[in-house]
Amino acid sequence: MSPARFDNRPIGVFDSGIGGLTVAAALRRALPNEDIFYLGDTERVPYGNKSPESIIRFARQDVAFLMRKGVKTVVAACNTVSSVAMEALHKSYPGLPILGVIEAGVDAALAAEAERITVIGTRATVNSDSYRRALHAVNPGLIVETLACPLLVPLAEEGVCDDPVTFHVFDLYLSELRRNPSDILVLGCTHYPVFRKALEHYFGGGLRIIDSANACAEMVKKYLAENSFGASPRKKGISRFFMTDLPSNIQESAGRFLGEEAGRVEKVSLDV
Amino acid sequence: MSPARFDNRPIGVFDSGIGGLTVAAALRRALPNEDIFYLGDTERVPYGNKSPESIIRFARQDVAFLMRKGVKTVVAACNTVSSVAMEALHKSYPGLPILGVIEAGVDAALAAEAERITVIGTRATVNSDSYRRALHAVNPGLIVETLACPLLVPLAEEGVCDDPVTFHVFDLYLSELRRNPSDILVLGCTHYPVFRKALEHYFGGGLRIIDSANACAEMVKKYLAENSFGASPRKKGISRFFMTDLPSNIQESAGRFLGEEAGRVEKVSLDV
Repeated sequence: MSPARFDNRPIGVFDSGIGGLTVAAALRRALPNEDIFYLGDTERVPYGNKSPESIIRFARQDVAFLMRKGVKTVVAACNTVSSVAMEALHKSYPGLPILGVIEAGVDAALAAEAERITVIGTRATVNSDSYRRALHAVNPGLIVETLACPLLVPLAEEGVCDDPVTFHVFDLYLSELRRNPSDILVLGCTHYPVFRKALEHYFGGGLRIIDSANACAEMVKKYLAENSFGASPRKKGISRFFMTDLPSNIQESAGRFLGEEAGRVEKVSLDV
Repeated sequence: MSPARFDNRPIGVFDSGIGGLTVAAALRRALPNEDIFYLGDTERVPYGNKSPESIIRFARQDVAFLMRKGVKTVVAACNTVSSVAMEALHKSYPGLPILGVIEAGVDAALAAEAERITVIGTRATVNSDSYRRALHAVNPGLIVETLACPLLVPLAEEGVCDDPVTFHVFDLYLSELRRNPSDILVLGCTHYPVFRKALEHYFGGGLRIIDSANACAEMVKKYLAENSFGASPRKKGISRFFMTDLPSNIQESAGRFLGEEAGRVEKVSLDV
Protein backbone atom coordinates (compact mmCIF):
# COMPACT_ATOMS: atom_id res chain seq x y z
CA MET A 1 0.00 0.00 0.00
CA SER A 2 1.30 3.45 -0.89
CA PRO A 3 1.29 6.21 1.74
CA ALA A 4 -0.39 8.44 -0.84
CA ARG A 5 -3.64 6.66 0.04
CA PHE A 6 -3.79 8.50 3.36
CA ASP A 7 -4.92 12.06 3.89
CA ASN A 8 -3.79 13.45 7.22
CA ARG A 9 -5.53 16.84 6.88
CA PRO A 10 -8.10 17.50 9.62
CA ILE A 11 -11.85 16.98 9.43
CA GLY A 12 -13.71 20.27 10.01
CA VAL A 13 -16.85 20.17 12.14
CA PHE A 14 -19.06 23.16 12.88
CA ASP A 15 -22.20 24.13 14.74
CA SER A 16 -23.96 27.29 15.91
CA GLY A 17 -22.49 26.68 19.34
CA ILE A 18 -21.60 23.72 21.49
CA GLY A 19 -24.39 21.25 20.62
CA GLY A 20 -22.33 19.89 17.73
CA LEU A 21 -19.75 18.67 20.24
CA THR A 22 -21.95 15.57 20.57
CA VAL A 23 -21.03 14.89 16.92
CA ALA A 24 -17.36 15.72 17.55
CA ALA A 25 -17.36 13.23 20.43
CA ALA A 26 -18.94 10.52 18.25
CA LEU A 27 -16.38 11.23 15.49
CA ARG A 28 -13.52 11.00 17.99
CA ARG A 29 -14.75 7.56 19.11
CA ALA A 30 -15.33 6.30 15.55
CA LEU A 31 -12.17 7.78 14.01
CA PRO A 32 -9.30 7.72 16.54
CA ASN A 33 -6.67 8.52 13.86
CA GLU A 34 -8.33 11.66 12.51
CA ASP A 35 -7.56 15.24 13.52
CA ILE A 36 -10.83 17.05 14.28
CA PHE A 37 -11.09 20.84 14.10
CA TYR A 38 -14.34 22.04 15.69
CA LEU A 39 -15.80 25.52 15.17
CA GLY A 40 -18.66 26.76 17.42
CA ASP A 41 -20.19 30.12 16.47
CA THR A 42 -20.94 30.87 20.13
CA GLU A 43 -21.09 34.59 19.38
CA ARG A 44 -24.30 34.15 17.37
CA VAL A 45 -25.75 31.01 18.96
CA PRO A 46 -28.52 29.85 18.58
CA TYR A 47 -29.22 29.52 14.84
CA GLY A 48 -32.46 27.52 15.18
CA ASN A 49 -34.77 30.48 15.75
CA LYS A 50 -33.27 32.67 13.02
CA SER A 51 -34.27 33.14 9.37
CA PRO A 52 -32.99 30.86 6.56
CA GLU A 53 -31.26 33.90 5.00
CA SER A 54 -29.22 34.57 8.15
CA ILE A 55 -28.48 30.87 8.75
CA ILE A 56 -27.07 30.52 5.20
CA ARG A 57 -24.85 33.58 5.64
CA PHE A 58 -23.53 32.33 8.99
CA ALA A 59 -22.90 28.80 7.62
CA ARG A 60 -20.90 30.17 4.65
CA GLN A 61 -18.66 32.09 7.07
CA ASP A 62 -18.22 28.98 9.24
CA VAL A 63 -17.16 26.80 6.28
CA ALA A 64 -14.82 29.51 4.96
CA PHE A 65 -13.07 29.62 8.34
CA LEU A 66 -12.53 25.84 8.38
CA MET A 67 -11.24 25.91 4.78
CA ARG A 68 -8.63 28.47 5.82
CA LYS A 69 -7.57 25.95 8.48
CA GLY A 70 -6.85 23.39 5.73
CA VAL A 71 -9.56 20.79 6.37
CA LYS A 72 -10.16 17.95 3.89
CA THR A 73 -13.91 17.75 4.53
CA VAL A 74 -16.54 19.57 6.56
CA VAL A 75 -19.33 18.15 8.71
CA ALA A 76 -22.24 20.49 9.39
CA ALA A 77 -22.89 19.17 12.91
CA CYS A 78 -26.04 21.23 13.18
CA ASN A 79 -29.45 20.09 11.99
CA THR A 80 -30.57 23.67 11.42
CA VAL A 81 -27.68 24.32 8.99
CA SER A 82 -28.08 20.88 7.41
CA SER A 83 -31.80 21.57 6.87
CA VAL A 84 -31.56 25.08 5.52
CA ALA A 85 -28.11 25.75 4.04
CA MET A 86 -26.65 22.60 2.41
CA GLU A 87 -27.58 23.51 -1.17
CA ALA A 88 -26.12 27.00 -0.73
CA LEU A 89 -22.93 25.57 0.83
CA HIS A 90 -22.41 23.03 -1.99
CA LYS A 91 -22.82 25.85 -4.53
CA SER A 92 -20.42 28.17 -2.69
CA TYR A 93 -17.71 25.53 -2.11
CA PRO A 94 -17.99 23.06 -5.03
CA GLY A 95 -14.57 21.44 -4.44
CA LEU A 96 -15.13 20.60 -0.79
CA PRO A 97 -17.03 17.54 0.47
CA ILE A 98 -19.59 18.88 2.98
CA LEU A 99 -21.64 16.33 4.90
CA GLY A 100 -24.73 17.08 6.96
CA VAL A 101 -26.43 15.38 9.89
CA ILE A 102 -29.87 15.07 8.28
CA GLU A 103 -28.79 12.44 5.76
CA ALA A 104 -27.31 10.32 8.57
CA GLY A 105 -30.45 10.55 10.71
CA VAL A 106 -32.63 9.74 7.71
CA ASP A 107 -30.55 6.68 6.79
CA ALA A 108 -30.70 5.38 10.36
CA ALA A 109 -34.47 5.93 10.51
CA LEU A 110 -34.98 4.14 7.19
CA ALA A 111 -32.79 1.23 8.31
CA ALA A 112 -35.10 0.70 11.28
CA GLU A 113 -37.98 -0.15 8.90
CA ALA A 114 -40.55 1.85 10.83
CA GLU A 115 -43.97 2.89 9.54
CA ARG A 116 -44.41 6.05 11.56
CA ILE A 117 -41.48 8.34 12.33
CA THR A 118 -41.44 11.48 14.49
CA VAL A 119 -38.64 14.02 14.16
CA ILE A 120 -38.04 16.71 16.78
CA GLY A 121 -35.87 19.77 16.14
CA THR A 122 -35.59 23.55 16.14
CA ARG A 123 -38.22 25.78 14.55
CA ALA A 124 -35.94 26.39 11.51
CA THR A 125 -35.35 22.65 11.01
CA VAL A 126 -39.06 21.84 11.24
CA ASN A 127 -40.09 24.77 9.01
CA SER A 128 -37.59 23.61 6.36
CA ASP A 129 -39.46 20.27 6.08
CA SER A 130 -36.07 18.69 5.27
CA TYR A 131 -36.55 15.42 7.17
CA ARG A 132 -39.99 14.72 5.73
CA ARG A 133 -38.80 15.41 2.19
CA ALA A 134 -35.70 13.21 2.57
CA LEU A 135 -37.69 10.34 4.11
CA HIS A 136 -40.48 10.55 1.54
CA ALA A 137 -37.97 10.69 -1.31
CA VAL A 138 -37.00 7.12 -0.40
CA ASN A 139 -40.31 5.83 0.92
CA PRO A 140 -43.39 7.95 0.15
CA GLY A 141 -45.56 5.62 2.21
CA LEU A 142 -43.98 6.54 5.54
CA ILE A 143 -45.97 8.51 8.08
CA VAL A 144 -43.66 11.37 9.11
CA GLU A 145 -44.41 13.94 11.81
CA THR A 146 -42.12 16.80 12.76
CA LEU A 147 -42.36 18.75 16.02
CA ALA A 148 -40.52 21.99 16.84
CA CYS A 149 -39.23 22.03 20.44
CA PRO A 150 -37.56 25.46 20.67
CA LEU A 151 -37.01 25.40 24.45
CA LEU A 152 -34.90 22.22 24.39
CA VAL A 153 -31.75 24.00 23.13
CA PRO A 154 -31.63 26.52 26.00
CA LEU A 155 -32.40 23.72 28.49
CA ALA A 156 -29.49 21.69 27.08
CA GLU A 157 -27.15 24.70 27.12
CA GLU A 158 -28.05 25.31 30.77
CA GLY A 159 -27.60 21.64 31.69
CA VAL A 160 -31.24 21.26 32.78
CA CYS A 161 -31.42 17.75 31.34
CA ASP A 162 -33.14 15.71 34.04
CA ASP A 163 -35.12 18.13 36.21
CA PRO A 164 -38.89 18.53 36.76
CA VAL A 165 -38.53 21.49 34.34
CA THR A 166 -37.22 19.12 31.65
CA PHE A 167 -40.24 16.84 31.90
CA HIS A 168 -42.71 19.75 31.91
CA VAL A 169 -41.05 21.07 28.74
CA PHE A 170 -41.43 17.57 27.23
CA ASP A 171 -45.13 17.86 28.16
CA LEU A 172 -45.37 21.17 26.25
CA TYR A 173 -44.25 19.55 23.02
CA LEU A 174 -44.52 15.77 23.34
CA SER A 175 -47.53 14.87 25.52
CA GLU A 176 -49.65 13.98 22.47
CA LEU A 177 -46.83 11.78 21.15
CA ARG A 178 -46.58 10.05 24.51
CA ARG A 179 -50.30 9.22 24.39
CA ASN A 180 -49.98 7.94 20.83
CA PRO A 181 -46.33 7.03 20.22
CA SER A 182 -44.82 6.52 16.77
CA ASP A 183 -42.28 3.77 16.07
CA ILE A 184 -39.21 5.98 16.04
CA LEU A 185 -38.22 9.34 17.49
CA VAL A 186 -35.36 11.00 15.59
CA LEU A 187 -33.39 13.53 17.66
CA GLY A 188 -33.13 16.14 14.90
CA CYS A 189 -30.86 18.54 16.77
CA THR A 190 -27.29 17.96 17.91
CA HIS A 191 -28.15 19.35 21.36
CA TYR A 192 -30.72 16.65 22.06
CA PRO A 193 -28.54 13.59 22.85
CA VAL A 194 -28.11 15.05 26.38
CA PHE A 195 -31.85 14.34 26.89
CA ARG A 196 -31.68 10.71 25.72
CA LYS A 197 -32.08 9.15 29.18
CA ALA A 198 -34.82 11.58 30.22
CA LEU A 199 -36.68 10.96 26.95
CA GLU A 200 -36.42 7.18 27.41
CA HIS A 201 -37.86 7.62 30.88
CA TYR A 202 -40.61 9.96 29.59
CA PHE A 203 -41.73 7.56 26.86
CA GLY A 204 -41.25 4.51 29.07
CA GLY A 205 -39.71 2.43 26.28
CA GLY A 206 -42.75 3.10 24.07
CA LEU A 207 -40.70 4.17 21.05
CA ARG A 208 -37.15 3.82 19.73
CA ILE A 209 -34.88 6.86 19.86
CA ILE A 210 -32.38 7.58 17.07
CA ASP A 211 -29.51 9.91 17.78
CA SER A 212 -28.13 11.63 14.68
CA ALA A 213 -24.68 12.24 16.28
CA ASN A 214 -23.70 8.55 16.21
CA ALA A 215 -25.35 8.02 12.82
CA CYS A 216 -23.38 10.99 11.48
CA ALA A 217 -20.04 9.64 12.75
CA GLU A 218 -20.70 6.30 11.03
CA MET A 219 -21.56 8.11 7.79
CA VAL A 220 -18.32 10.12 7.89
CA LYS A 221 -16.29 6.97 8.63
CA LYS A 222 -17.85 5.20 5.64
CA TYR A 223 -17.31 8.23 3.41
CA LEU A 224 -13.60 8.46 4.28
CA ALA A 225 -13.08 4.73 3.71
CA GLU A 226 -14.88 4.68 0.36
CA ASN A 227 -12.95 7.69 -0.91
CA SER A 228 -9.51 6.67 0.44
CA PHE A 229 -9.60 9.90 2.34
CA GLY A 230 -8.73 8.68 5.85
CA ALA A 231 -5.72 9.52 8.02
CA SER A 232 -2.86 7.08 8.47
CA PRO A 233 -3.76 4.31 10.93
CA ARG A 234 -0.41 4.94 12.63
CA LYS A 235 -1.40 8.52 13.45
CA LYS A 236 -3.06 9.51 16.74
CA GLY A 237 -5.77 12.08 16.04
CA ILE A 238 -5.89 15.37 17.93
CA SER A 239 -8.87 17.67 18.53
CA ARG A 240 -8.85 21.46 18.40
CA PHE A 241 -11.76 23.63 19.50
CA PHE A 242 -12.39 27.09 18.03
CA MET A 243 -15.20 29.34 19.28
CA THR A 244 -16.25 32.85 18.22
CA ASP A 245 -17.03 33.82 21.82
CA LEU A 246 -15.87 32.50 25.18
CA PRO A 247 -18.58 33.22 27.76
CA SER A 248 -17.75 32.57 31.41
CA ASN A 249 -19.29 29.07 31.58
CA ILE A 250 -17.89 27.75 28.27
CA GLN A 251 -15.63 25.03 29.73
CA GLU A 252 -18.40 23.56 31.86
CA SER A 253 -20.98 23.63 29.05
CA ALA A 254 -18.58 22.27 26.43
CA GLY A 255 -17.63 19.41 28.72
CA ARG A 256 -21.29 18.45 29.11
CA PHE A 257 -21.76 17.95 25.35
CA LEU A 258 -18.34 16.46 24.71
CA GLY A 259 -18.64 14.00 27.59
CA GLU A 260 -15.14 14.96 28.81
CA GLU A 261 -12.98 18.03 29.47
CA ALA A 262 -12.68 20.15 26.32
CA GLY A 263 -9.15 21.29 27.19
CA ARG A 264 -8.01 24.51 25.58
CA VAL A 265 -10.66 26.41 23.59
CA GLU A 266 -9.32 29.00 21.10
CA LYS A 267 -11.22 32.26 20.54
CA VAL A 268 -11.39 33.16 16.85
CA SER A 269 -12.96 35.75 14.57
CA LEU A 270 -14.72 34.76 11.34
CA ASP A 271 -13.74 38.05 9.68
CA VAL A 272 -11.10 37.54 7.01
CA MET B 1 -41.89 80.16 23.94
CA SER B 2 -39.55 79.79 21.00
CA PRO B 3 -39.89 76.74 18.76
CA ALA B 4 -36.14 76.22 19.16
CA ARG B 5 -36.91 74.69 22.56
CA PHE B 6 -38.29 71.58 20.85
CA ASP B 7 -36.26 68.78 19.34
CA ASN B 8 -38.28 66.60 16.99
CA ARG B 9 -35.51 64.12 16.23
CA PRO B 10 -36.37 60.53 17.23
CA ILE B 11 -35.37 58.73 20.41
CA GLY B 12 -33.30 55.63 19.62
CA VAL B 13 -33.96 52.48 21.65
CA PHE B 14 -32.09 49.21 21.27
CA ASP B 15 -31.93 45.72 22.67
CA SER B 16 -30.40 42.35 21.77
CA GLY B 17 -33.79 41.32 20.44
CA ILE B 18 -37.42 41.99 21.23
CA GLY B 19 -37.36 42.16 25.06
CA GLY B 20 -36.62 45.89 24.92
CA LEU B 21 -40.01 46.40 23.28
CA THR B 22 -41.38 46.47 26.84
CA VAL B 23 -39.34 49.67 27.25
CA ALA B 24 -40.46 51.00 23.85
CA ALA B 25 -44.09 50.41 24.90
CA ALA B 26 -43.55 52.24 28.20
CA LEU B 27 -41.86 55.14 26.34
CA ARG B 28 -44.76 55.31 23.87
CA ARG B 29 -47.24 55.62 26.77
CA ALA B 30 -45.13 58.19 28.67
CA LEU B 31 -44.09 60.28 25.64
CA PRO B 32 -46.91 60.37 23.05
CA ASN B 33 -45.25 63.20 21.06
CA GLU B 34 -41.89 61.51 20.56
CA ASP B 35 -40.78 59.51 17.54
CA ILE B 36 -39.28 56.22 18.71
CA PHE B 37 -36.82 54.25 16.54
CA TYR B 38 -36.31 50.75 17.92
CA LEU B 39 -33.43 48.47 16.92
CA GLY B 40 -33.50 44.76 17.86
CA ASP B 41 -30.34 42.77 17.05
CA THR B 42 -32.41 39.62 16.44
CA GLU B 43 -29.62 38.14 14.32
CA ARG B 44 -27.37 37.77 17.38
CA VAL B 45 -29.96 37.48 20.18
CA PRO B 46 -29.48 36.69 23.07
CA TYR B 47 -26.66 38.84 24.50
CA GLY B 48 -27.07 37.75 28.14
CA ASN B 49 -25.04 34.55 27.88
CA LYS B 50 -22.17 36.03 25.86
CA SER B 51 -18.86 37.55 26.97
CA PRO B 52 -18.49 41.24 27.99
CA GLU B 53 -16.09 41.71 25.05
CA SER B 54 -18.70 40.56 22.51
CA ILE B 55 -21.53 42.46 24.20
CA ILE B 56 -19.53 45.73 24.03
CA ARG B 57 -18.76 45.20 20.34
CA PHE B 58 -22.41 44.47 19.53
CA ALA B 59 -23.64 47.48 21.54
CA ARG B 60 -21.25 49.86 19.72
CA GLN B 61 -22.63 48.66 16.38
CA ASP B 62 -26.22 49.10 17.63
CA VAL B 63 -25.61 52.69 18.75
CA ALA B 64 -23.76 53.54 15.52
CA PHE B 65 -26.77 52.35 13.52
CA LEU B 66 -29.17 54.54 15.50
CA MET B 67 -26.85 57.56 15.16
CA ARG B 68 -26.94 57.12 11.38
CA LYS B 69 -30.74 57.31 11.69
CA GLY B 70 -30.39 60.77 13.28
CA VAL B 71 -31.55 60.09 16.84
CA LYS B 72 -31.17 62.75 19.55
CA THR B 73 -30.61 60.28 22.38
CA VAL B 74 -30.25 56.52 22.81
CA VAL B 75 -31.83 54.26 25.41
CA ALA B 76 -30.05 50.94 25.99
CA ALA B 77 -33.25 48.97 26.67
CA CYS B 78 -31.26 45.93 27.69
CA ASN B 79 -29.98 45.28 31.19
CA THR B 80 -27.10 43.19 29.86
CA VAL B 81 -25.81 46.09 27.74
CA SER B 82 -26.52 48.60 30.52
CA SER B 83 -24.55 46.43 32.95
CA VAL B 84 -21.57 45.66 30.78
CA ALA B 85 -21.14 48.28 28.05
CA MET B 86 -22.20 51.75 29.26
CA GLU B 87 -18.72 53.03 30.02
CA ALA B 88 -17.45 51.85 26.63
CA LEU B 89 -20.44 53.44 24.86
CA HIS B 90 -19.98 56.80 26.60
CA LYS B 91 -16.32 56.79 25.59
CA SER B 92 -17.07 55.83 21.96
CA TYR B 93 -19.90 58.35 21.51
CA PRO B 94 -19.10 61.30 23.83
CA GLY B 95 -21.53 63.73 22.19
CA LEU B 96 -24.59 61.51 22.46
CA PRO B 97 -26.71 61.14 25.59
CA ILE B 98 -27.02 57.37 26.21
CA LEU B 99 -29.32 56.26 28.99
CA GLY B 100 -29.45 52.77 30.49
CA VAL B 101 -32.11 50.77 32.28
CA ILE B 102 -30.02 49.94 35.36
CA GLU B 103 -30.01 53.51 36.67
CA ALA B 104 -33.82 53.63 36.39
CA GLY B 105 -34.32 50.34 38.21
CA VAL B 106 -31.86 51.39 40.91
CA ASP B 107 -33.62 54.74 41.45
CA ALA B 108 -37.00 53.01 41.73
CA ALA B 109 -35.61 50.44 44.18
CA LEU B 110 -34.02 53.18 46.32
CA ALA B 111 -37.24 55.21 46.32
CA ALA B 112 -39.06 52.24 47.85
CA GLU B 113 -36.89 52.52 50.99
CA ALA B 114 -36.34 48.76 51.29
CA GLU B 115 -33.72 47.07 53.46
CA ARG B 116 -33.23 43.93 51.40
CA ILE B 117 -33.38 43.99 47.60
CA THR B 118 -33.17 41.05 45.18
CA VAL B 119 -32.31 41.62 41.52
CA ILE B 120 -32.88 38.93 38.88
CA GLY B 121 -31.29 39.06 35.44
CA THR B 122 -29.16 37.32 32.83
CA ARG B 123 -25.84 35.68 33.69
CA ALA B 124 -23.91 38.61 32.14
CA THR B 125 -25.91 41.17 34.16
CA VAL B 126 -25.41 39.28 37.43
CA ASN B 127 -21.70 38.61 36.74
CA SER B 128 -21.18 42.35 36.10
CA ASP B 129 -22.33 43.14 39.67
CA SER B 130 -23.72 46.43 38.27
CA TYR B 131 -26.91 46.58 40.34
CA ARG B 132 -25.17 45.86 43.65
CA ARG B 133 -22.47 48.45 42.98
CA ALA B 134 -25.02 51.12 41.98
CA LEU B 135 -27.24 50.44 45.00
CA HIS B 136 -24.33 50.34 47.45
CA ALA B 137 -22.89 53.55 45.98
CA VAL B 138 -25.96 55.34 47.36
CA ASN B 139 -26.66 53.22 50.42
CA PRO B 140 -23.88 50.83 51.52
CA GLY B 141 -26.15 49.45 54.27
CA LEU B 142 -28.59 47.78 51.86
CA ILE B 143 -28.70 43.99 51.64
CA VAL B 144 -28.52 43.24 47.91
CA GLU B 145 -28.83 39.79 46.34
CA THR B 146 -28.55 39.06 42.64
CA LEU B 147 -29.77 35.88 40.97
CA ALA B 148 -29.05 34.78 37.39
CA CYS B 149 -32.13 33.24 35.73
CA PRO B 150 -30.82 32.33 32.26
CA LEU B 151 -33.85 30.28 31.18
CA LEU B 152 -36.31 33.14 31.63
CA VAL B 153 -35.31 34.90 28.38
CA PRO B 154 -36.01 31.87 26.16
CA LEU B 155 -39.28 31.24 28.04
CA ALA B 156 -40.32 34.86 27.42
CA GLU B 157 -39.32 34.69 23.75
CA GLU B 158 -41.42 31.54 23.36
CA GLY B 159 -44.40 33.06 25.19
CA VAL B 160 -44.31 30.43 27.95
CA CYS B 161 -45.23 33.01 30.57
CA ASP B 162 -47.91 31.30 32.66
CA ASP B 163 -47.51 27.55 32.21
CA PRO B 164 -46.49 24.81 34.67
CA VAL B 165 -43.06 25.08 32.98
CA THR B 166 -42.85 28.74 33.98
CA PHE B 167 -43.42 27.95 37.65
CA HIS B 168 -40.96 25.06 37.65
CA VAL B 169 -38.33 27.37 36.17
CA PHE B 170 -39.14 29.88 38.95
CA ASP B 171 -38.50 26.98 41.37
CA LEU B 172 -35.07 26.38 39.80
CA TYR B 173 -33.95 29.91 40.57
CA LEU B 174 -36.32 31.46 43.12
CA SER B 175 -37.53 28.77 45.55
CA GLU B 176 -35.12 29.91 48.28
CA LEU B 177 -36.30 33.51 47.82
CA ARG B 178 -39.91 32.39 48.10
CA ARG B 179 -39.15 30.72 51.44
CA ASN B 180 -37.33 33.81 52.67
CA PRO B 181 -38.55 36.78 50.61
CA SER B 182 -36.73 40.12 50.44
CA ASP B 183 -38.61 43.44 50.42
CA ILE B 184 -38.26 44.14 46.73
CA LEU B 185 -37.68 42.10 43.57
CA VAL B 186 -36.18 44.14 40.72
CA LEU B 187 -36.84 42.69 37.25
CA GLY B 188 -33.33 43.28 35.93
CA CYS B 189 -34.03 42.21 32.35
CA THR B 190 -36.35 43.86 29.83
CA HIS B 191 -37.83 40.46 28.95
CA TYR B 192 -39.14 39.86 32.44
CA PRO B 193 -42.19 42.17 32.63
CA VAL B 194 -44.13 39.47 30.72
CA PHE B 195 -43.76 37.31 33.88
CA ARG B 196 -45.07 39.98 36.27
CA LYS B 197 -48.45 38.32 36.92
CA ALA B 198 -46.95 34.84 37.25
CA LEU B 199 -44.29 36.16 39.64
CA GLU B 200 -46.92 37.93 41.76
CA HIS B 201 -48.82 34.64 41.91
CA TYR B 202 -45.62 32.69 42.73
CA PHE B 203 -44.65 34.98 45.60
CA GLY B 204 -48.25 35.39 46.78
CA GLY B 205 -47.85 39.11 47.46
CA GLY B 206 -44.84 38.39 49.70
CA LEU B 207 -42.61 41.00 48.04
CA ARG B 208 -42.93 44.07 45.86
CA ILE B 209 -41.94 43.79 42.19
CA ILE B 210 -40.21 46.66 40.38
CA ASP B 211 -40.27 46.71 36.61
CA SER B 212 -37.38 48.61 35.06
CA ALA B 213 -39.28 49.30 31.79
CA ASN B 214 -41.69 51.77 33.40
CA ALA B 215 -38.96 53.23 35.60
CA CYS B 216 -36.83 53.76 32.49
CA ALA B 217 -39.61 55.54 30.60
CA GLU B 218 -40.07 57.96 33.51
CA MET B 219 -36.32 58.60 33.62
CA VAL B 220 -36.22 59.42 29.90
CA LYS B 221 -39.24 61.73 30.24
CA LYS B 222 -37.56 63.61 33.07
CA TYR B 223 -34.28 63.83 31.15
CA LEU B 224 -35.96 65.30 28.07
CA ALA B 225 -37.88 67.86 30.14
CA GLU B 226 -34.84 68.97 32.15
CA ASN B 227 -32.73 69.39 29.02
CA SER B 228 -35.41 71.03 26.83
CA PHE B 229 -34.92 68.15 24.51
CA GLY B 230 -38.53 67.02 23.98
CA ALA B 231 -40.59 66.97 20.78
CA SER B 232 -43.24 69.57 20.08
CA PRO B 233 -46.43 68.87 22.06
CA ARG B 234 -48.36 69.42 18.83
CA LYS B 235 -46.59 66.51 17.17
CA LYS B 236 -47.96 62.96 17.19
CA GLY B 237 -45.08 60.53 17.72
CA ILE B 238 -44.52 57.61 15.39
CA SER B 239 -42.70 54.34 16.06
CA ARG B 240 -40.39 52.50 13.67
CA PHE B 241 -39.04 49.01 14.26
CA PHE B 242 -35.70 47.85 12.83
CA MET B 243 -34.45 44.28 13.28
CA THR B 244 -31.27 42.59 12.04
CA ASP B 245 -33.16 39.36 11.33
CA LEU B 246 -36.81 38.57 10.68
CA PRO B 247 -37.48 34.96 11.78
CA SER B 248 -40.84 33.45 10.90
CA ASN B 249 -42.54 34.22 14.22
CA ILE B 250 -41.28 37.80 14.64
CA GLN B 251 -44.66 39.57 14.40
CA GLU B 252 -46.25 37.34 17.02
CA SER B 253 -43.30 37.57 19.43
CA ALA B 254 -42.88 41.31 18.98
CA GLY B 255 -46.58 41.86 19.65
CA ARG B 256 -46.29 39.96 22.93
CA PHE B 257 -43.62 42.33 24.29
CA LEU B 258 -45.09 45.48 22.79
CA GLY B 259 -48.59 44.72 24.04
CA GLU B 260 -50.03 45.51 20.59
CA GLU B 261 -49.38 44.78 16.91
CA ALA B 262 -45.89 45.90 15.93
CA GLY B 263 -46.97 46.82 12.39
CA ARG B 264 -44.22 46.89 9.78
CA VAL B 265 -40.80 45.67 10.95
CA GLU B 266 -37.85 46.72 8.75
CA LYS B 267 -34.94 44.34 8.22
CA VAL B 268 -31.59 46.13 8.45
CA SER B 269 -27.87 45.37 8.38
CA LEU B 270 -25.49 46.89 10.93
CA ASP B 271 -22.61 46.85 8.42
CA VAL B 272 -21.75 50.35 7.29
